Amino acid sequence: MQIVVLAGGIGGARFLLGVRAHARRIGAEVTAVVNVGDDVQMHGLRICPDLDSVMYTLGGAHDPERGWGRVGESWVVKEELAAYGAEPSWFGLGDKDVATHLVRTTMLTAGYPLSAVTEALCARWQPGVRLLPATDDRLETHVVAEVEGERRAIHFQEWWVRYRGDVPTHRFVFAGAEAAKPAAGVLDALGSADVVLVAPSNPVVSVAPVLAVPGIKEALADGPAPVVGVSPIIAGAAVRGMADRCLATIGVECSAAGVAGLYGARSAGGLLDGWLVDSSDAGVELPGARVRAVPLWMTDEDATAAMVAAALELA
Amino acid sequence: MQIVVLAGGIGGARFLLGVRAHARRIGAEVTAVVNVGDDVQMHGLRICPDLDSVMYTLGGAHDPERGWGRVGESWVVKEELAAYGAEPSWFGLGDKDVATHLVRTTMLTAGYPLSAVTEALCARWQPGVRLLPATDDRLETHVVAEVEGERRAIHFQEWWVRYRGDVPTHRFVFAGAEAAKPAAGVLDALGSADVVLVAPSNPVVSVAPVLAVPGIKEALADGPAPVVGVSPIIAGAAVRGMADRCLATIGVECSAAGVAGLYGARSAGGLLDGWLVDSSDAGVELPGARVRAVPLWMTDEDATAAMVAAALELA
Repeated sequence: MQIVVLAGGIGGARFLLGVRAHARRIGAEVTAVVNVGDDVQMHGLRICPDLDSVMYTLGGAHDPERGWGRVGESWVVKEELAAYGAEPSWFGLGDKDVATHLVRTTMLTAGYPLSAVTEALCARWQPGVRLLPATDDRLETHVVAEVEGERRAIHFQEWWVRYRGDVPTHRFVFAGAEAAKPAAGVLDALGSADVVLVAPSNPVVSVAPVLAVPGIKEALADGPAPVVGVSPIIAGAAVRGMADRCLATIGVECSAAGVAGLYGARSAGGLLDGWLVDSSDAGVELPGARVRAVPLWMTDEDATAAMVAAALELA
Repeated sequence: MQIVVLAGGIGGARFLLGVRAHARRIGAEVTAVVNVGDDVQMHGLRICPDLDSVMYTLGGAHDPERGWGRVGESWVVKEELAAYGAEPSWFGLGDKDVATHLVRTTMLTAGYPLSAVTEALCARWQPGVRLLPATDDRLETHVVAEVEGERRAIHFQEWWVRYRGDVPTHRFVFAGAEAAKPAAGVLDALGSADVVLVAPSNPVVSVAPVLAVPGIKEALADGPAPVVGVSPIIAGAAVRGMADRCLATIGVECSAAGVAGLYGARSAGGLLDGWLVDSSDAGVELPGARVRAVPLWMTDEDATAAMVAAALELA
């Protein structure tokens, strides 16, 4: 059985722990198609926060308390960069992380596509899941917001990390998306998938940039596999991160029903065949798709694997 | 009074501490023209060991015991790169050092010449001496040696750090030298110098690559300032480093007289008007130049400043 997961960020990483656990039980293979919209160039380093979150989490090397980055991380390089007055200084650039970025940047500069670089990095981490960037091309989420008294387009990381999303925000732009192509392996994975899961990641800035790559949405719409989404919103609140701010920006209610409406039913030209919501959201409907309510708190790997089992049943 | 010092490596850095101390006493300004032949690209970072040694030493941030790099250094990035299997793994890449290389590489990539980058880095370290790379162009010392059973040209750092110079060695090549131009400011500094000092740096791989930049040797030969060298060899032994191996490779005796002969007297088409040797080498002669013997052990800043005073008297 082939399971493909569309994922981004820390929610995606945690969900993939459960997917991997369930897949091992049923003998399935897992491919994760990961958001690259958060990717950014800083201090000459190519940083891929979502790919790294997934890689570190599945490799058992993530910091479970902070949620992102490496466990046992140190911050010498960051402090030294600040001492030089090098900007930006607000980004969390750990020493262990820097090595990952150096290897990645060196390989990219040598001409390897991001998908090949990710595979090379994963040789160390053995995530047990095939990780693919949504695209090998440059695709960056920019945010049009009111910053320091003027309307500016800033990188998603600046909006998220520097301003904590706490500035008047007009819209999100997936810069480069029009010209991006699905990364090597993505369309093949979707074409041979038995089921596609949409992780409970931020629908606006984690899942939407994946779907913004021309060809991916079409492959999902026309593909053989049922598509089942897992709600990132429980009882009207984002499980983590700033999905509430992001949904408000695009005028979508922060609820399991709101996100269902945003994704839409595949039978009506949207994304989903099935929609998994939390027990507290029982009663949510998505005309044209099956909806099921189960506990959606990813408290541990077993609980998450149970969610995955429920999603596969829905498929 | 304008003092220009040709320097490289740790010997050059220590000598410059004494030059700065003496210059402060007599109200002189100091410009150091520093070797870039050791510079190397590793893990995508542009590393300038000699410029950094001088900068860190004059900035009071060097490790006095190890001799190179930063005091209080940590090695997380290096260990992580090794865990990824990233080559080369034999180079001492400290975490604090990495930040310097990131700032430098970012500025070079943005189009700034190395001289401007060095000035920017020095804004933090306040070395009290104007640091100029010999050239803004790529000039790398390569070593033709017998490595793993075959004759190969390897980068100087590989020869020095990885093999400790302990391989049959045929010659040194200053790759890129023919096309290199003196860095911005170098010819002006030489043209307005009251005296030029040649630091007790390795004559073969620290001083020679500076002189290999077309225009620098001519500016010294035709310039207004007397040129005084300080012997890096005391009683037939290199004060530090591997000057003995380097001199042997080019067929020059490892002695104060041997290096004097290598540099030559300016009046005879060579480099030097004066040659300062250690007291133990009293009696060394360089026809056409003045030779003086004083204690040359750079045990502390005062002892080094006394050497500098003696060199200026010789001028």
